[in-house]
Amino acid sequence: MNTTVGVIGGGQLARMMIPAAVNLGIRIRVLAENEGMSADLAAVQVGDYRDRDVVLAFAETVDVVTFDHEHVPQEILRELVARGVAVHPGPDALLYAQDKLLMRQRLSELGLPVPDWARVENAAELGVFLAAHNGRAVVKTARGGYDGKGVRLVTHEHEADDWFAALAEDGNDGALLVEELVEFRRELAQLVARRPSGQIALWPVVETVQQGGVCSEVIAPAPQSEGRLADAAADIAVRIVEGIGATGMLAVELFETTDERILVNELAMRPHNSGHWSIEGSTTSQFEQHLRAVLDLPLGATDARDPWTVMVNILGGPASETLSSRYPAAFEAFPTAKVHTYGKDPRPGRKVGHVTVGGDDLDLVAYQARAAAAVFQD
Amino acid sequence: MNTTVGVIGGGQLARMMIPAAVNLGIRIRVLAENEGMSADLAAVQVGDYRDRDVVLAFAETVDVVTFDHEHVPQEILRELVARGVAVHPGPDALLYAQDKLLMRQRLSELGLPVPDWARVENAAELGVFLAAHNGRAVVKTARGGYDGKGVRLVTHEHEADDWFAALAEDGNDGALLVEELVEFRRELAQLVARRPSGQIALWPVVETVQQGGVCSEVIAPAPQSEGRLADAAADIAVRIVEGIGATGMLAVELFETTDERILVNELAMRPHNSGHWSIEGSTTSQFEQHLRAVLDLPLGATDARDPWTVMVNILGGPASETLSSRYPAAFEAFPTAKVHTYGKDPRPGRKVGHVTVGGDDLDLVAYQARAAAAVFQD
Repeated sequence: MNTTVGVIGGGQLARMMIPAAVNLGIRIRVLAENEGMSADLAAVQVGDYRDRDVVLAFAETVDVVTFDHEHVPQEILRELVARGVAVHPGPDALLYAQDKLLMRQRLSELGLPVPDWARVENAAELGVFLAAHNGRAVVKTARGGYDGKGVRLVTHEHEADDWFAALAEDGNDGALLVEELVEFRRELAQLVARRPSGQIALWPVVETVQQGGVCSEVIAPAPQSEGRLADAAADIAVRIVEGIGATGMLAVELFETTDERILVNELAMRPHNSGHWSIEGSTTSQFEQHLRAVLDLPLGATDARDPWTVMVNILGGPASETLSSRYPAAFEAFPTAKVHTYGKDPRPGRKVGHVTVGGDDLDLVAYQARAAAAVFQD
Repeated sequence: MNTTVGVIGGGQLARMMIPAAVNLGIRIRVLAENEGMSADLAAVQVGDYRDRDVVLAFAETVDVVTFDHEHVPQEILRELVARGVAVHPGPDALLYAQDKLLMRQRLSELGLPVPDWARVENAAELGVFLAAHNGRAVVKTARGGYDGKGVRLVTHEHEADDWFAALAEDGNDGALLVEELVEFRRELAQLVARRPSGQIALWPVVETVQQGGVCSEVIAPAPQSEGRLADAAADIAVRIVEGIGATGMLAVELFETTDERILVNELAMRPHNSGHWSIEGSTTSQFEQHLRAVLDLPLGATDARDPWTVMVNILGGPASETLSSRYPAAFEAFPTAKVHTYGKDPRPGRKVGHVTVGGDDLDLVAYQARAAAAVFQD
């Protein structure tokens, strides 16, 4: 059996694959963007993932190529596949994580519930969409957005003119995605893993809480999700991974609307912040499962280990100290909290770590996770 | 806060500290004996831990020195301490893990329950001990024994003559440890962690099963250990770590005798095979706790996460295949089993990995762990 996994990208998702790989006896090698990144310990090469020669050389040293992010260009991915390299997720699937317009189009074709959307190429087309949706809409760049970037609420057709202009200059085809502004009760996420040979594993659907477009907290499972809601989320995730042939981990970000619909918001085709709770909270974490899936190994059990698990991100961190300077205080006050930091320098709003607490009492668990994470904030 | 832990020794115990360090955001650097060892991923230097210059150079690159084994010579440890290096456990404590005669002597001074024992320098002295103990005893070399090596059951005073001769030639003081052959019902182990500043954490006492002197299985907690037995084991462990000033993890191997006594068998002054279950089975694993303890950070909660956790060693492995060749079969049949392999080549009797399963039903959990481990044996 081949057991060296190559990860393109050296961020915290690659970092969190390292413990899973070490435990499982899988070799892991990382192609990092820079020295000293989160996944430094497993970094064997530093280079640009947009450089064909760099990626091809890296791929020769591993048995399967996977990713910390979705930004490796399609032409490089397709050359890897043409050369017989195992790439998971593959380019055909990754396309839908790279381009939100294609994603919306494909999900619509698959009959999945999505917000009303349109492809718009200019202010006039945007105006038509606004007129049909009470004068409010969300405009998104098809490519390159994350954590709230590349997403804008608009109430007038000219509020995306700068983006149309920039896209035209890029030589891109100049289209933006526009979506109805969904009135939602809360946001959910459904984690799913799929092997190339077809096996699928699902975790309990979780509730995600955002602050300024960035995930701040995850509650697993989502409160009052048993039954219809959990079934709907699971059904959507299965139809997506089978419909687009995704392999490895995939996270489906969902809206639970005020009128009781479940709509697909975004897809992430890799381990995802909404699954960090699974490191301690599930029998098999999303990171271990990702390794199993990309190696086409049988997937592990995904049951929750506690009635409730709450994960709270450490965003920013202390202004003028290291994160570890807060360990004594955090560990002293919260002995059951599992603190993770990513080896990143604190910077306002940056995801530099997270805290997970599990237990029987949701209020207590949430309090402990939030309070422990707060020890790392000024 | 200082957060680079240096581990001397590159075996599986150092390896299993890596996931804990990565999760916790602690840097870990390993001084390995050879290339390609279990803890290879964190190995920054290859060298002989008996070479003063090698160890001193390594120590300069880290904030605290700790160990994968107890074999670093006392004179090197003492020089590190004299130079102001934080060493945990320190030489005064490690002495008792390095020399079983000194350990027995110290435990006796502390009033702890130990088997009858004596220091014997020749066959005549061994004969005296045998005569006083129904003609049967266990002889142990004071230094260098592990996993059943350096331990011999004798029924005649001349059955240790080769060891006496070898010790005399070594220029050693020529003494062996002789102990009564304890009639025991079962073997137990009490894991304990202690910070330099004094805080102590204890896990539930576990039952250990040996095959040919090698640990084959651990059941956590030890069945029917609640109450008197658990209290006695905990009390012994606390008296030991406080009595000898141990820091970091310590495992106390215990006999539960047929006449209802608890006796101290051996000490291990590091993470220990009897604590591997804690990786998944406890809120804080012995490896995370060891890192916290040697950095003098507040210790984590040590409660068991399941009513029962069973850990079964993979001993030897397949004769003519890699361990990973058995992953598909093991993962397919046992989705809840957590499989760990150590990057070691299979060899008869060698500890090359382990499997942990947790749950509510001890019979089921033990069956699954044993059967999953058996997939890796021929």
